[in-house]
Amino acid sequence: MTDATFTEIEYAAADGIATITLDRPDRLNAFTPTMARELIAAFDRSDADDDVRVVIVTGRGRGFCAGADLGNGGATFDATDERRVADRAGVGSIGGVTRDGGGTVSLRIAASLKPVIGAVNGPAVGVGATMTLPMDMRFAAASARFGFVFARRGLVPEAASSWFLPRIVGISQAMEWAATGRVFDAAEALAGRLVSRVVPDDELLDTARGVAREIADNTSSISVAASRQMLWAMLGAESPWEAHRLDSRAIHHLGQGADVAEGVTAFLDKRAPAFPNRVSADYPSGIVPAWPSRPEGMD
Amino acid sequence: MTDATFTEIEYAAADGIATITLDRPDRLNAFTPTMARELIAAFDRSDADDDVRVVIVTGRGRGFCAGADLGNGGATFDATDERRVADRAGVGSIGGVTRDGGGTVSLRIAASLKPVIGAVNGPAVGVGATMTLPMDMRFAAASARFGFVFARRGLVPEAASSWFLPRIVGISQAMEWAATGRVFDAAEALAGRLVSRVVPDDELLDTARGVAREIADNTSSISVAASRQMLWAMLGAESPWEAHRLDSRAIHHLGQGADVAEGVTAFLDKRAPAFPNRVSADYPSGIVPAWPSRPEGMD
Amino acid sequence: MTDATFTEIEYAAADGIATITLDRPDRLNAFTPTMARELIAAFDRSDADDDVRVVIVTGRGRGFCAGADLGNGGATFDATDERRVADRAGVGSIGGVTRDGGGTVSLRIAASLKPVIGAVNGPAVGVGATMTLPMDMRFAAASARFGFVFARRGLVPEAASSWFLPRIVGISQAMEWAATGRVFDAAEALAGRLVSRVVPDDELLDTARGVAREIADNTSSISVAASRQMLWAMLGAESPWEAHRLDSRAIHHLGQGADVAEGVTAFLDKRAPAFPNRVSADYPSGIVPAWPSRPEGMD
Repeated sequence: MTDATFTEIEYAAADGIATITLDRPDRLNAFTPTMARELIAAFDRSDADDDVRVVIVTGRGRGFCAGADLGNGGATFDATDERRVADRAGVGSIGGVTRDGGGTVSLRIAASLKPVIGAVNGPAVGVGATMTLPMDMRFAAASARFGFVFARRGLVPEAASSWFLPRIVGISQAMEWAATGRVFDAAEALAGRLVSRVVPDDELLDTARGVAREIADNTSSISVAASRQMLWAMLGAESPWEAHRLDSRAIHHLGQGADVAEGVTAFLDKRAPAFPNRVSADYPSGIVPAWPSRPEGMD
Repeated sequence: MTDATFTEIEYAAADGIATITLDRPDRLNAFTPTMARELIAAFDRSDADDDVRVVIVTGRGRGFCAGADLGNGGATFDATDERRVADRAGVGSIGGVTRDGGGTVSLRIAASLKPVIGAVNGPAVGVGATMTLPMDMRFAAASARFGFVFARRGLVPEAASSWFLPRIVGISQAMEWAATGRVFDAAEALAGRLVSRVVPDDELLDTARGVAREIADNTSSISVAASRQMLWAMLGAESPWEAHRLDSRAIHHLGQGADVAEGVTAFLDKRAPAFPNRVSADYPSGIVPAWPSRPEGMD
Repeated sequence: MTDATFTEIEYAAADGIATITLDRPDRLNAFTPTMARELIAAFDRSDADDDVRVVIVTGRGRGFCAGADLGNGGATFDATDERRVADRAGVGSIGGVTRDGGGTVSLRIAASLKPVIGAVNGPAVGVGATMTLPMDMRFAAASARFGFVFARRGLVPEAASSWFLPRIVGISQAMEWAATGRVFDAAEALAGRLVSRVVPDDELLDTARGVAREIADNTSSISVAASRQMLWAMLGAESPWEAHRLDSRAIHHLGQGADVAEGVTAFLDKRAPAFPNRVSADYPSGIVPAWPSRPEGMD
């Protein structure tokens, strides 16, 4: 099922997997405020749909996302430029300052209750690269390229990538890519641990779907949702005692639930589990708080 | 010397190395509350014994640890189940909530004053995998397997692994293993940096002992104890200035001590050092605070 | 242009690159309080000189830096030893305790507004190894060796390395090197991700200069300076929302600037950019605060 309400992305859900396709192939899927709003809405939808267990994000055509659309030339990033103000209606601000559009997308992805796989099919540059960082896994086609090119444009890394990138690839690799602004190929992305797999172009989606199936067919949806929130949130925790308090409560709560009874019984019976719990009804939100789907403190 | 007071582990200390062997081979060393209590007591003992410089943890027989013993079936993780309540006497709680047993072990290992090497000889699944994370190094036998299988059982990662795992293998690898709940082999563990070495099965213990010897024969015990506390604790520090305050005080204190005089003199004399300081008497606890050996805030 | 005011280092700036050479080749460039003061002054100079875009640090002769000069033997690290007190004039203290000299250098490097490349040409041991950790990249000559040897001398890791090292190589690798105090070769450094490249000895400086050129020729100096501060500082941030607040403000400010207008225009024109902004005048210090160049809270 695809959805006709989106104009710059395609959203299709089937067999437990939602596939979000950046869909401006004539512009290498360059990022716009409309695309940002649609991506946020798409993740709202995947989170609300219990039939969706995993989200895959990819790009239509030759590119993944070539970065911000530079159609306004040198004024593209000038928030005071009148063309941009008009386009920004409804984006809001933080403390009176315009907020970064890529960041609103990245933080929405970070808050996802479903695991997210980036399937990078071609060039992913600027916000096209940084939007993949809050995804849980990144697989690349052999023809993919990446670039954190901000320093070559007079900008700085955005979309909260100064937080995400060093945690994914280490501070040294992050600084090399941020300081040079270099565009690099899939092999360098793999060596630097930006992506975990590089596959032939025509195997990319099947690879992503294979891992998605592994999740959808074998796991409890509330377990995966809570695990995702726990692992990302604990990156900011000062000590493992904080994690111990959190997981003690979570194990105590889930340990009495229907999914663990099914999971253990199915395991002992050597059969596939059929977990009854659903994220919409059963996510333990009082115990494992989810990251907000909208940045806090926004006007 | 082995110790007859333990029933589900074996504790043996010789030549500066304590070896803790999970010892329920007929159950692939499945984890129980008794094993948890014995592991905590074993680390109390290795910390108190100045003759122990390094701790190795391994498993008896074909397995390392198959995870929580599922002898109570679907009610295994139900803290309100009466069989489990009876078994839990003395485990305590946090704010009235039962605390996770694996976490009490992991946090005890995290607080160890002696470096800990995990020698994973076979399947290490569930708590069998997560209990290795606070160990300083993990070496695997070729036949080892690993699984963070919680999502396949309707649970979430425990034993404070939401804090430890992303810091060891990175958030992307951690999420792939947590979301799929996949059981994977030693080669995948090595590629994902969960273990630093994979060796033939019959070389595993010798490999661990070789690194243990390297530590025991060459280093100051208080230096190693303080270094261990500093490196782990600084993972939670906001900035390097916090580390600078800590190491300035530590270097100032240790710089006047007997071990540094011996260490520098031995180096200049090109001979092996014979450090006089002992952890029990000389650990600089007022300067480099050690992590608590029991979780804080427990009832 | 080299500078005659330094006695234990050489500082030379040309073509946008400052090269700092540790210059006590007869002592394998062993570290002294004089060298510490000169290194701090050298980074003050490179930060103040807008013509310097990148800093390379290397060693004269066979070594990079053999560690603290042990000319005072067993009393070398005794801050109460009168020879050391005399040499320490002007180093200051934290809360009445002598501060670690290596740390003052490391924190000065951490605060650099220009990216720093360590070109490790030979043995880098003790503070010779830890001083490289706040550098953004480390490349090694094939004959380089490394050692975090503190535990073999009765000390603990200094120069804030308990904060830096686990963030660069992971806690497990950091603990293996800190606990054993082992001296290891360039191949082990590469496998453990302490360095990102190992090259033949006679290609080391050209390799470092090649990356430096890539930065100097293609990027905005204020973008690089702000990116460096953002990526390092966000290692201590609890969540990506903190980064989003920071980069929203930075993008809003820089997006109206001269460098972004030039960067985007040059990109669209397919020509090399000529960025007008200068760090001394245009660094957005009110928006992206730089780390202090001197440790805070010092007497």
